[in-house]
Amino acid sequence: QDKAAGQAKAAVCAACHGADGTSVMPDYPNLAGQKEKYLQSAITAYRDGSRKHAVMSPMANGLTDTDIANLAAYFASLPPQSPAK
Amino acid sequence: QDKAAGQAKAAVCAACHGADGTSVMPDYPNLAGQKEKYLQSAITAYRDGSRKHAVMSPMANGLTDTDIANLAAYFASLPPQSPAK
Repeated sequence: QDKAAGQAKAAVCAACHGADGTSVMPDYPNLAGQKEKYLQSAITAYRDGSRKHAVMSPMANGLTDTDIANLAAYFASLPPQSPAK
Repeated sequence: QDKAAGQAKAAVCAACHGADGTSVMPDYPNLAGQKEKYLQSAITAYRDGSRKHAVMSPMANGLTDTDIANLAAYFASLPPQSPAK
Protein backbone atom coordinates (compact mmCIF):
# COMPACT_ATOMS: atom_id res chain seq x y z
CA GLN A 1 0.00 0.00 0.00
CA ASP A 2 0.96 3.60 -0.64
CA LYS A 3 0.14 5.71 2.41
CA ALA A 4 1.01 8.96 0.61
CA ALA A 5 -1.48 8.14 -2.13
CA GLY A 6 -3.91 7.19 0.62
CA GLN A 7 -3.41 10.55 2.28
CA ALA A 8 -4.08 12.38 -0.99
CA LYS A 9 -7.20 10.32 -1.60
CA ALA A 10 -8.31 10.95 2.00
CA ALA A 11 -8.62 14.72 1.56
CA VAL A 12 -12.36 14.41 1.00
CA CYS A 13 -12.77 12.07 3.98
CA ALA A 14 -11.41 14.67 6.38
CA ALA A 15 -14.66 16.62 6.15
CA CYS A 16 -16.36 14.05 8.40
CA HIS A 17 -13.58 11.82 9.70
CA GLY A 18 -11.27 14.70 10.64
CA ALA A 19 -7.93 15.71 9.10
CA ASP A 20 -6.20 13.56 11.73
CA GLY A 21 -8.68 10.68 11.46
CA THR A 22 -10.54 11.64 14.61
CA SER A 23 -14.04 12.39 13.46
CA VAL A 24 -15.72 15.72 13.95
CA MET A 25 -19.15 14.27 14.64
CA PRO A 26 -20.26 11.76 17.29
CA ASP A 27 -22.13 9.85 14.60
CA TYR A 28 -19.06 9.21 12.46
CA PRO A 29 -16.35 6.78 13.51
CA ASN A 30 -12.80 7.71 14.28
CA LEU A 31 -10.52 6.05 11.72
CA ALA A 32 -7.08 6.87 13.13
CA GLY A 33 -5.33 3.73 14.38
CA GLN A 34 -8.19 1.47 13.32
CA LYS A 35 -7.31 -2.00 12.00
CA GLU A 36 -6.18 -1.72 8.35
CA LYS A 37 -7.95 -4.91 7.21
CA TYR A 38 -11.17 -3.86 8.97
CA LEU A 39 -11.07 -0.45 7.27
CA GLN A 40 -10.60 -2.16 3.92
CA SER A 41 -13.57 -4.45 4.48
CA ALA A 42 -15.77 -1.58 5.68
CA ILE A 43 -15.04 0.68 2.70
CA THR A 44 -15.45 -2.27 0.33
CA ALA A 45 -18.79 -3.08 1.97
CA TYR A 46 -19.98 0.45 1.22
CA ARG A 47 -18.78 0.07 -2.34
CA ASP A 48 -20.46 -3.28 -2.97
CA GLY A 49 -23.59 -2.31 -1.06
CA SER A 50 -23.48 -4.76 1.83
CA ARG A 51 -23.32 -1.61 3.96
CA LYS A 52 -25.51 1.31 2.97
CA HIS A 53 -25.09 4.92 4.02
CA ALA A 54 -26.30 8.12 2.40
CA VAL A 55 -22.80 9.62 2.38
CA MET A 56 -20.49 6.61 2.43
CA SER A 57 -22.11 4.65 -0.39
CA PRO A 58 -21.55 7.36 -3.03
CA MET A 59 -18.12 8.12 -1.53
CA ALA A 60 -16.99 4.53 -1.85
CA ASN A 61 -18.55 4.04 -5.24
CA GLY A 62 -15.76 5.53 -7.32
CA LEU A 63 -12.88 3.92 -5.42
CA THR A 64 -10.61 1.26 -6.92
CA ASP A 65 -9.20 -1.63 -4.85
CA THR A 66 -5.89 0.23 -4.80
CA ASP A 67 -7.55 3.41 -3.54
CA ILE A 68 -9.20 1.40 -0.78
CA ALA A 69 -5.96 -0.34 0.21
CA ASN A 70 -4.13 3.00 0.30
CA LEU A 71 -6.87 4.74 2.30
CA ALA A 72 -6.98 1.88 4.81
CA ALA A 73 -3.19 1.89 5.19
CA TYR A 74 -3.16 5.65 5.64
CA PHE A 75 -5.84 5.89 8.33
CA ALA A 76 -4.57 2.78 10.15
CA SER A 77 -1.17 4.46 10.43
CA LEU A 78 -2.50 7.59 12.15
CA PRO A 79 -2.18 7.84 15.95
CA PRO A 80 -5.62 7.67 17.58
CA GLN A 81 -6.69 10.37 20.01
CA SER A 82 -7.59 9.43 23.55
CA PRO A 83 -11.22 10.36 24.17
CA ALA A 84 -11.67 13.83 25.63
CA LYS A 85 -12.06 13.26 29.34
CA GLN B 1 -24.91 5.32 30.83
CA ASP B 2 -23.31 2.99 33.34
CA LYS B 3 -19.74 2.21 32.31
CA ALA B 4 -19.30 -0.40 35.03
CA ALA B 5 -22.35 -2.28 33.76
CA GLY B 6 -20.95 -1.85 30.27
CA GLN B 7 -17.65 -3.34 31.37
CA ALA B 8 -19.39 -6.35 32.87
CA LYS B 9 -21.47 -6.83 29.73
CA ALA B 10 -18.31 -6.46 27.60
CA ALA B 11 -16.63 -9.55 29.03
CA VAL B 12 -17.77 -11.63 26.07
CA CYS B 13 -16.69 -8.95 23.58
CA ALA B 14 -13.08 -9.14 24.76
CA ALA B 15 -12.62 -12.45 22.96
CA CYS B 16 -12.43 -10.62 19.63
CA HIS B 17 -12.23 -6.92 20.50
CA GLY B 18 -9.56 -7.38 23.18
CA ALA B 19 -9.82 -6.89 26.93
CA ASP B 20 -8.61 -3.30 26.41
CA GLY B 21 -10.77 -2.68 23.36
CA THR B 22 -7.90 -3.15 20.92
CA SER B 23 -8.89 -6.09 18.81
CA VAL B 24 -6.89 -9.27 18.57
CA MET B 25 -7.58 -9.83 14.89
CA PRO B 26 -6.94 -7.56 11.91
CA ASP B 27 -10.46 -8.27 10.69
CA TYR B 28 -12.16 -6.96 13.83
CA PRO B 29 -12.28 -3.26 14.65
CA ASN B 30 -10.65 -1.65 17.62
CA LEU B 31 -13.35 -0.22 19.87
CA ALA B 32 -11.27 1.65 22.45
CA GLY B 33 -11.76 5.41 22.12
CA GLN B 34 -14.27 5.04 19.30
CA LYS B 35 -17.16 7.55 19.17
CA GLU B 36 -19.86 6.51 21.68
CA LYS B 37 -22.79 7.39 19.42
CA TYR B 38 -21.20 5.55 16.48
CA LEU B 39 -20.69 2.45 18.62
CA GLN B 40 -24.32 2.60 19.68
CA SER B 41 -25.54 2.86 16.10
CA ALA B 42 -23.26 0.02 14.94
CA ILE B 43 -24.37 -2.43 17.67
CA THR B 44 -27.99 -1.45 17.11
CA ALA B 45 -27.55 -2.06 13.38
CA TYR B 46 -26.36 -5.60 14.12
CA ARG B 47 -29.35 -6.08 16.41
CA ASP B 48 -31.94 -4.80 13.93
CA GLY B 49 -30.26 -6.49 10.97
CA SER B 50 -29.23 -3.48 8.90
CA ARG B 51 -25.73 -4.83 9.43
CA LYS B 52 -25.21 -8.58 9.21
CA HIS B 53 -22.30 -10.56 10.58
CA ALA B 54 -22.01 -14.22 11.52
CA VAL B 55 -20.72 -13.37 15.01
CA MET B 56 -22.04 -9.87 15.68
CA SER B 57 -25.65 -10.47 14.70
CA PRO B 58 -26.25 -13.20 17.31
CA MET B 59 -24.13 -11.25 19.83
CA ALA B 60 -26.23 -8.13 19.46
CA ASN B 61 -29.50 -10.00 19.35
CA GLY B 62 -29.99 -10.36 23.09
CA LEU B 63 -28.94 -6.83 24.04
CA THR B 64 -31.33 -4.23 25.45
CA ASP B 65 -31.04 -0.52 24.60
CA THR B 66 -29.53 -0.01 28.05
CA ASP B 67 -26.95 -2.75 27.45
CA ILE B 68 -26.02 -1.11 24.16
CA ALA B 69 -25.74 2.36 25.73
CA ASN B 70 -23.55 0.98 28.53
CA LEU B 71 -21.33 -1.02 26.17
CA ALA B 72 -20.87 2.02 23.91
CA ALA B 73 -20.03 4.26 26.88
CA TYR B 74 -17.58 1.72 28.22
CA PHE B 75 -15.60 1.13 25.03
CA ALA B 76 -15.66 4.83 24.08
CA SER B 77 -14.03 5.61 27.44
CA LEU B 78 -11.06 3.27 26.91
CA PRO B 79 -7.76 4.80 25.73
CA PRO B 80 -6.99 3.66 22.16
CA GLN B 81 -3.64 2.07 21.39
CA SER B 82 -1.38 3.66 18.82
CA PRO B 83 -0.87 1.19 15.97
CA ALA B 84 2.18 -1.02 16.40
CA LYS B 85 4.86 0.64 14.36
